[in-house]
Amino acid sequence: MKNTFLLLCLFIVAHTIAQTNDEATIRKIYDESLERGKSYSMLEYLTTRIGERLSGSPGAAKAVLWAKQTMEDSGFDSVWLQPVMVPHWVRGQKETGTIRPSKGKPMNVNVCALGGSVGTGPTGLEAQVIEVKKLTDLVELGEKHIKGKIVFFNRPMDPKFISTFDAYSGANDQRHDGPTEAAKYGAVGAIVRSMGSNIETYPHTGSTEYKSGFPKIPAVAISTLHADWLSKALGDDKQLKFYMESHCEILEDAPSFNVVGEIKGSEFPEEIILVGGHLDSWDLAQGAHDDGTGCVQSIEVLRIFNAMGYKPKRTIRCVLFMNEENGLAGGNKYAELAKTNKEKNIAAIESDAGGFTPRGFTIGAKTPAIVKAYINSWKHLLEPYGLTDFSQSGAGADIEPLEAQGTTVISFLPDSQRYFKYHHTAEDTFDKVDKRELELGAASIAALVYLIDRNGLK
Amino acid sequence: MKNTFLLLCLFIVAHTIAQTNDEATIRKIYDESLERGKSYSMLEYLTTRIGERLSGSPGAAKAVLWAKQTMEDSGFDSVWLQPVMVPHWVRGQKETGTIRPSKGKPMNVNVCALGGSVGTGPTGLEAQVIEVKKLTDLVELGEKHIKGKIVFFNRPMDPKFISTFDAYSGANDQRHDGPTEAAKYGAVGAIVRSMGSNIETYPHTGSTEYKSGFPKIPAVAISTLHADWLSKALGDDKQLKFYMESHCEILEDAPSFNVVGEIKGSEFPEEIILVGGHLDSWDLAQGAHDDGTGCVQSIEVLRIFNAMGYKPKRTIRCVLFMNEENGLAGGNKYAELAKTNKEKNIAAIESDAGGFTPRGFTIGAKTPAIVKAYINSWKHLLEPYGLTDFSQSGAGADIEPLEAQGTTVISFLPDSQRYFKYHHTAEDTFDKVDKRELELGAASIAALVYLIDRNGLK
Repeated sequence: MKNTFLLLCLFIVAHTIAQTNDEATIRKIYDESLERGKSYSMLEYLTTRIGERLSGSPGAAKAVLWAKQTMEDSGFDSVWLQPVMVPHWVRGQKETGTIRPSKGKPMNVNVCALGGSVGTGPTGLEAQVIEVKKLTDLVELGEKHIKGKIVFFNRPMDPKFISTFDAYSGANDQRHDGPTEAAKYGAVGAIVRSMGSNIETYPHTGSTEYKSGFPKIPAVAISTLHADWLSKALGDDKQLKFYMESHCEILEDAPSFNVVGEIKGSEFPEEIILVGGHLDSWDLAQGAHDDGTGCVQSIEVLRIFNAMGYKPKRTIRCVLFMNEENGLAGGNKYAELAKTNKEKNIAAIESDAGGFTPRGFTIGAKTPAIVKAYINSWKHLLEPYGLTDFSQSGAGADIEPLEAQGTTVISFLPDSQRYFKYHHTAEDTFDKVDKRELELGAASIAALVYLIDRNGLK
Repeated sequence: MKNTFLLLCLFIVAHTIAQTNDEATIRKIYDESLERGKSYSMLEYLTTRIGERLSGSPGAAKAVLWAKQTMEDSGFDSVWLQPVMVPHWVRGQKETGTIRPSKGKPMNVNVCALGGSVGTGPTGLEAQVIEVKKLTDLVELGEKHIKGKIVFFNRPMDPKFISTFDAYSGANDQRHDGPTEAAKYGAVGAIVRSMGSNIETYPHTGSTEYKSGFPKIPAVAISTLHADWLSKALGDDKQLKFYMESHCEILEDAPSFNVVGEIKGSEFPEEIILVGGHLDSWDLAQGAHDDGTGCVQSIEVLRIFNAMGYKPKRTIRCVLFMNEENGLAGGNKYAELAKTNKEKNIAAIESDAGGFTPRGFTIGAKTPAIVKAYINSWKHLLEPYGLTDFSQSGAGADIEPLEAQGTTVISFLPDSQRYFKYHHTAEDTFDKVDKRELELGAASIAALVYLIDRNGLK
């Protein structure tokens, strides 16, 4: 009885010490990021000196070199490149779109080609327009009303969703599948209302995917404001025509790289905790929130540990994936190599939802309940930093392929309200990122990595 | 036994229905704000058409008329003005500040007079500078080192605080009390490092308070970037002089108004639930986040109820206070009249921390534990909307005087990270407000008002 009591006391003391240590270490992580952080200056370089970096582009190649150098300069134990072949799509000259009414003056509107789209070439494409709100409208209308026309997908993101990602998911089929679905019924082109949460003058690009067996038709996004104009013009004049011109091309696949760096674990070096973002970005701007912030936060996690003199028990690995935007070649390649090399990636955390104020983490849907509960048992340590939401399922596209290998996949969850103002547009620039919000995000991810490193994942 | 069982069943059914009704009504409140909200267009008018509105200024007078008209147009049952005398301070022409080294070229820096400060007049003020980090440094230095000099208060806001309001509280004594404390030791002027969370080129104004019995010395804020420059220059050259010129004046108190409007309660009209912000703003910009957003959110709460056809049981009153920034005359007047008229303000909710993404509410420190617990029992209804933080104490300056009358005072708590980039600066303009963030805030306040209206406060 006496012994049991003594053991219990010892256990309580040990537990209290561990708890106090965790609190103190997490506080130090935030202090390092907020007082001496490098994420903001790294982001400035990546976005304003390198800028756009779509897969296969000169910017992407520069970004790979920058990332490797930056990891080496941050004192990582080892840094290497993982070769991967990526799709190579180029936008060519600027795109144009014009509403040409039956009578009266034509009106230019702001459009941009969808990623992966074929171009119209210099002769452009002119045709009548048919507006739809959802893909199933195409079935109802049939070839009779669609053939030879441009289909205009015009369902807005629903503002009633609290998370703008839910609104995006609810509208995105139009961009991703709309053009190819329209082609099935003989459409000659597609215009898609931009996936933007606000009424704006600038368009949002993003991938469209052609299905084999159907014609590849040129597809553009139109700004939300101009989508409203076009819809109104069509209401007044069903015979109006739309002229679109785009010069994009799908070139041969190109060689590129994931950039990988790590700090070796001192006790369980074979257990890898991955933290990452994607290095490629759309070509209209600087790829600041998508996903420059995720890249610099991931590098910063390891830099913070080094700066604090924290020696992880497990291997902490930073992976900057190539080609998230239009192919996922980098994410798939990483998972393939992990399988071949029998690596044990116990957890993978991606930051790819913008550099906004931290709100929590989402956890992969296939994660066992016991692991979810274990992660949730750390909540009280993270809540003082505004990390309160651990309830949502899901994880980023780059780390999803690891889930099949038993990796616990997690995504950093920042506030979502402003993301779809900038996402895939010419507005996704460095000045849209708040320094403190970015730094809090880096510290939040580092805090979770620290807890996984200390405790494992059951 | 049978009866007890039946009663229990009835209670459970009634409770479930109430819960479902609450959920549905709160959802409708958010839908109204996000789909058909008017807060953003109201804010656009107030900030870009009226703009700066410091107490006693023509802008403040215009804002009073606008607020009255807007409440009337929004279908409030009654709208009236509460006369109040307010301090009337004017900035005059633009201020200047120049570092004049012993040798070499002078360097202009960005300064602005502190609110309530006396000016230097056209001859300006030139003197040597002594830098301090805290008020107690003055005691140590004494008259010997301070007399005839300009005291430069240069303690930054501490970036390690997660809430920037805590960092502000930790630095603000320099601005509020620094000049008058320096005057006690014979200082002839004061320069205060701006209360800004970032390194910026523009200064932050705000009130300073002179104590009677000591000379009123001219006081300016210097931008955080230029504070760093001045500190460095002083390190190299202790003999350098600083030239400052300001033309501000304290005029006679002026007549102004609180603007009050309400929807009468159907069951307990004598019980008032107040929702408010402050109508006055500093004069350097448009008073967007401080506190245009709080004003339009408060009006929007009542407009949402009207638009939904919701008839409150208690009286819902919107109060736009005058003179929060430099005197609190409006808040004090409202509380004084409430007392005289024996009004029963059961709750007062202020929005005066910016129009950013909602995080929760703070509750007045003197609130009985039972009331705090009761408010917390609604948390599960608000958490789906990102309102997770109900743990902090405190409430806004305008409603604090009501606390002594037994009112439960509550402040809307939005995300704080960007507030002190804009607070009291020329950057506090309409374009810094995100439409969705603003609308979510209005809905969050309306949801809490609804719950208090339905349930009372114990």
